[in-house]
Amino acid sequence: MEELKALAIKKLEERGVTINDIALIVKDIQSIYRNISIDECIDTVLYVISKRETIYTILTGISLDEAAEKGLLDEKVNNLIKNDKGLFGLDEILALSIVNMNGSIALTNFGYLDKIKPGIIGKIDNEGKKKIRCHTFLDDIVSAIAASAASRIAHNVEEN
Amino acid sequence: MEELKALAIKKLEERGVTINDIALIVKDIQSIYRNISIDECIDTVLYVISKRETIYTILTGISLDEAAEKGLLDEKVNNLIKNDKGLFGLDEILALSIVNMNGSIALTNFGYLDKIKPGIIGKIDNEGKKKIRCHTFLDDIVSAIAASAASRIAHNVEEN
Amino acid sequence: MEELKALAIKKLEERGVTINDIALIVKDIQSIYRNISIDECIDTVLYVISKRETIYTILTGISLDEAAEKGLLDEKVNNLIKNDKGLFGLDEILALSIVNMNGSIALTNFGYLDKIKPGIIGKIDNEGKKKIRCHTFLDDIVSAIAASAASRIAHNVEEN
Amino acid sequence: MEELKALAIKKLEERGVTINDIALIVKDIQSIYRNISIDECIDTVLYVISKRETIYTILTGISLDEAAEKGLLDEKVNNLIKNDKGLFGLDEILALSIVNMNGSIALTNFGYLDKIKPGIIGKIDNEGKKKIRCHTFLDDIVSAIAASAASRIAHNVEEN
Repeated sequence: MEELKALAIKKLEERGVTINDIALIVKDIQSIYRNISIDECIDTVLYVISKRETIYTILTGISLDEAAEKGLLDEKVNNLIKNDKGLFGLDEILALSIVNMNGSIALTNFGYLDKIKPGIIGKIDNEGKKKIRCHTFLDDIVSAIAASAASRIAHNVEEN
Repeated sequence: MEELKALAIKKLEERGVTINDIALIVKDIQSIYRNISIDECIDTVLYVISKRETIYTILTGISLDEAAEKGLLDEKVNNLIKNDKGLFGLDEILALSIVNMNGSIALTNFGYLDKIKPGIIGKIDNEGKKKIRCHTFLDDIVSAIAASAASRIAHNVEEN
Repeated sequence: MEELKALAIKKLEERGVTINDIALIVKDIQSIYRNISIDECIDTVLYVISKRETIYTILTGISLDEAAEKGLLDEKVNNLIKNDKGLFGLDEILALSIVNMNGSIALTNFGYLDKIKPGIIGKIDNEGKKKIRCHTFLDDIVSAIAASAASRIAHNVEEN
Repeated sequence: MEELKALAIKKLEERGVTINDIALIVKDIQSIYRNISIDECIDTVLYVISKRETIYTILTGISLDEAAEKGLLDEKVNNLIKNDKGLFGLDEILALSIVNMNGSIALTNFGYLDKIKPGIIGKIDNEGKKKIRCHTFLDDIVSAIAASAASRIAHNVEEN
């Protein structure tokens, strides 16, 4: 899995998303509740990404975005994914495989981030809307990772 | 089911939540995307509440809130529910039975509403936090109904 | 959506799954509880497939299977999907977009069918395991459609 | 949490379910795939029960069963829970809070166990159907714990 984890992080970066970008969102949504260092956020993001479910979702979701970008899929499906209509919905479903593993706080944070699209989430969503690239699955995956990391921090803090 | 639906609406009102309160939240989150009348919001909220899953969740969730309020449950469980800690999580899970039936837009709206707590959601959450009443399950149920109604409106509009 | 529904049914048939194959599974799991005609099962399967979430999931899941079959995805992702390991898990998650819309009986039926793999589900799973074709997503999608149709029949019967 | 974990195990035993009963189901569904000792099954069941989500679900679900048994809830809700109709559905939803934390194999195992009801699951389901006690939530909770433990074992084995 170590090799696949490195590949997942490499693919995220190729698509324009760094661990630091995600950590900044985690720090931002946690800052209302507590003081937390960017390093702790980075460590938690890396922990969430080390899980098999997260790695598989990153690799599969980005593959779908790239395949649609290159027009490799059947025309109608290719358009479905490229257009990223609000009603498509499979991008959110795929991201649930990450969110579900991290408790109910992850679920509400995911819905929140998916709607307000802060930081890098808004940036890639915007690139997608402008048809610069296809990020239909990526923005939900990044929201899910950030929401899950925030949930883990909340759990750890409130437990101790 | 008609009888149980009427009971569910009656229980919501007994706990301080009217159909109109929920419809106002639906109108509010939809107003960014489209003009919509409060009557259409009310009709959609009533449609969501007419579903068996919604009725059962309203009746069961409010029963848990009331039982905890009256101290009818085992002390430790009673405290768990009354304290409504962010980590409890079963209130969000129970609300998923409503959200799941209404598509992925309902899911993201649910997380969003559960976090920003507009209108009546904030009011009952506040009553709960002040220990005036126990609304541990109710606020998530109301968020789920509003999120589901908003999702249905989005689907209907974008389909036509 | 009518056009996309026709395409979804066409793609299912191209991959070796007919509406009748799915209806036979529905009839089989319902036969323990009630007498039901194959025509009613076919109608219910067609109803489940008429839902947007089902259509999108069929088209996207089969596209992933076909892309992996043709080796169009990054090598590592392509292998992940082609090997269909029990731990992959995204095939079940994608199928949840169908199951979630159809109530809790759909959920338990889905888990059951995914494990015992009756009829056409076992046939395509076997073709996949023998590397004749890649059906990693298809078998879960067919299980989800059959489970959802069975759930709808149970609801309708027990309501009346 | 240690104290709450001990209480959850005590409540399970009061309702007629021992850790060993659950471990036997885990051993049974895993025996198709691998040789595994009952001790390893017991350890994994205890690990699953040590999670906050599991503890809260056990305590809340059993409280609902007991409250319905004693007739403490509103008459209509009390009957809903006591009758445990297949369409009620909230018992499965509540159990998802355990299943979701343990990956997709837990989900399919849960649906399978909830349907075939082996060992202690069938015993308590039967007690419930005979109105000896109310186990509406308990049988799904036990299925969820066994399914989650089996999923964890499958993950650990296949990873190494």
